[in-house]
Amino acid sequence: MKDDTITLDHGSGGKLSHRLILDTVLPVFDDPALRCLDDGAVLETEGGRIAFSTDTYVVDPLFFPGGNIGDLAVNGTVNDLAMCGAVPLYLSVGMIIEEGFLRRDLDGILETMQRAARAASVRIVTGDTKVVPRGAVDKIFINTAGIGVVPEGVCVSGRNARIGDRVLVSGTLADHGMTILTRREGLRFESSLQSDTAPLNHMVADMLDDCGGDIHALRDPTRGGVGTSLNEIAESSGVTIRIHEDRIPVKRAVAGLCELLGIDPLYVANEGKLVAVVAPEAAFRVLDRMHAHPMGRDARIIGEVTAADIVPVIMTTRIGGTRIVDMPTGEQLPRIC
Amino acid sequence: MKDDTITLDHGSGGKLSHRLILDTVLPVFDDPALRCLDDGAVLETEGGRIAFSTDTYVVDPLFFPGGNIGDLAVNGTVNDLAMCGAVPLYLSVGMIIEEGFLRRDLDGILETMQRAARAASVRIVTGDTKVVPRGAVDKIFINTAGIGVVPEGVCVSGRNARIGDRVLVSGTLADHGMTILTRREGLRFESSLQSDTAPLNHMVADMLDDCGGDIHALRDPTRGGVGTSLNEIAESSGVTIRIHEDRIPVKRAVAGLCELLGIDPLYVANEGKLVAVVAPEAAFRVLDRMHAHPMGRDARIIGEVTAADIVPVIMTTRIGGTRIVDMPTGEQLPRIC
Repeated sequence: MKDDTITLDHGSGGKLSHRLILDTVLPVFDDPALRCLDDGAVLETEGGRIAFSTDTYVVDPLFFPGGNIGDLAVNGTVNDLAMCGAVPLYLSVGMIIEEGFLRRDLDGILETMQRAARAASVRIVTGDTKVVPRGAVDKIFINTAGIGVVPEGVCVSGRNARIGDRVLVSGTLADHGMTILTRREGLRFESSLQSDTAPLNHMVADMLDDCGGDIHALRDPTRGGVGTSLNEIAESSGVTIRIHEDRIPVKRAVAGLCELLGIDPLYVANEGKLVAVVAPEAAFRVLDRMHAHPMGRDARIIGEVTAADIVPVIMTTRIGGTRIVDMPTGEQLPRIC
Repeated sequence: MKDDTITLDHGSGGKLSHRLILDTVLPVFDDPALRCLDDGAVLETEGGRIAFSTDTYVVDPLFFPGGNIGDLAVNGTVNDLAMCGAVPLYLSVGMIIEEGFLRRDLDGILETMQRAARAASVRIVTGDTKVVPRGAVDKIFINTAGIGVVPEGVCVSGRNARIGDRVLVSGTLADHGMTILTRREGLRFESSLQSDTAPLNHMVADMLDDCGGDIHALRDPTRGGVGTSLNEIAESSGVTIRIHEDRIPVKRAVAGLCELLGIDPLYVANEGKLVAVVAPEAAFRVLDRMHAHPMGRDARIIGEVTAADIVPVIMTTRIGGTRIVDMPTGEQLPRIC
């Protein structure tokens, strides 16, 4: 009977989300662009290739250390476009507001969105506002959609990982998810935690500028974390990805809290980090480019792509063992983004 | 104190919606494309002009005679693009689903969306699904954003109405809004009422094909109805629009119900109708084109554009008097679309 209804696990970004898309959405909306299962669609037009992406933000609480739902919504779609190899240009904003919402909170969110748009060099050009009666929505939800242009020679997709490629992450993992979790559970002792929400497009432009053809796949590990992103890439490309636990960057405070709560940082949401799969000969050049950018100071090579093995993602543990990095089945924490 | 919070009236599509956008959103998201206040943004790109639009659908009930939230969401954004003079090409879909939502309802909605996309010749190319805990959203809300291409020579905007232009509507008014209202209030005696949700892009293409440069403004009168759309056009263009009550097409059953309930059909939402402002010499040619299309069989010339008068919109009543057609202040019925 459980299959008759949609559960929170269907929104986790993990296995059940994946199944919902594969079994319910894709067979109906059958389109080659959707079938790629990338962060956005890349579309051929007369003026070149454009990227198109959308995301809805339902984060709770609305305001958190490091940002609010506004910059999260702008950066999220900017990053999805950047993960298609595109230069983001235009955003739309669709807001659903609960009757009685405080105007000064709306003002604060809008101002944050505009600042975030400026920082990412994108224009908010169209929008829609709905107000619904009390109880029909929890405070405010925001959808953003975005358009970008894909430069010639760039061909980035989760299907393009090749054997021998190196796997890079742009910085410390789990900052956003653990910040939201501590706020929600009232664990305020960890005052140093802060969301990493940030636009990645300028760093991606630097990376592509230098090594365009060598960057095969990009993904921003939001819901479901790096563990999920790596599984998606490995499955789409028909390869196995091996990562090394001792190379995975996690802030000390975040690592401590994860250990305390029994949470694996590999599955926690990030909002200003990316995973890159890069040709081996270009890996250090790309890493240098990332290090030179403020968003990529803590970038690391964390693994490599091998021929398809029994499972899509394997991790060498700190003590030299081997662990399967499966896609998570259910929801760690709803309304993380 | 009322000004400190967002009220339902801010979502009405009428005066307070307008003020919310003008006072709260526009000063922060200051962008020339937004300032046009059209149904979507028209953007210059290397490959020509593209149109970009978004809308969120929160209709209650989800299923109603003539359609459901799915085709409403597809047709709504298709129509917003068509109102920019664009040929709609691509849609994104962002869904927020309440935990416990029935899977067969989701299936039904998705299938309807796909059928609607086919009928409108657009592709659904990217999307996002969020599931939120029970009570955080009422069943399901759907955002669509869309991209279209604006053909050369077409320049359609609410700012382009000129003195002498004729004002056309493509068919009977108030069908969608009155259908939702009867369903919500349980007034099921009116079994013949049906939403008019439909894609207008093919008819608009026919109209533009023949008389591209003569079509100055297009708008689909959804929330707030034709009364609001005419006020928006008149204000944006700095003119006055005079319409004639006896020429306004309303189905007999809808007119009767409006009279019974004391509702003015001019302010009731439509989801498959448009208002066109057309050069006088082309008015009958455009009307012929509309009549030749199934969506425009009941099209009529309902008025004309004059020099700016004391108020933006005036109506000659059936008995020969004159009535001001003001923008509605508040909300007639929330969650109409």
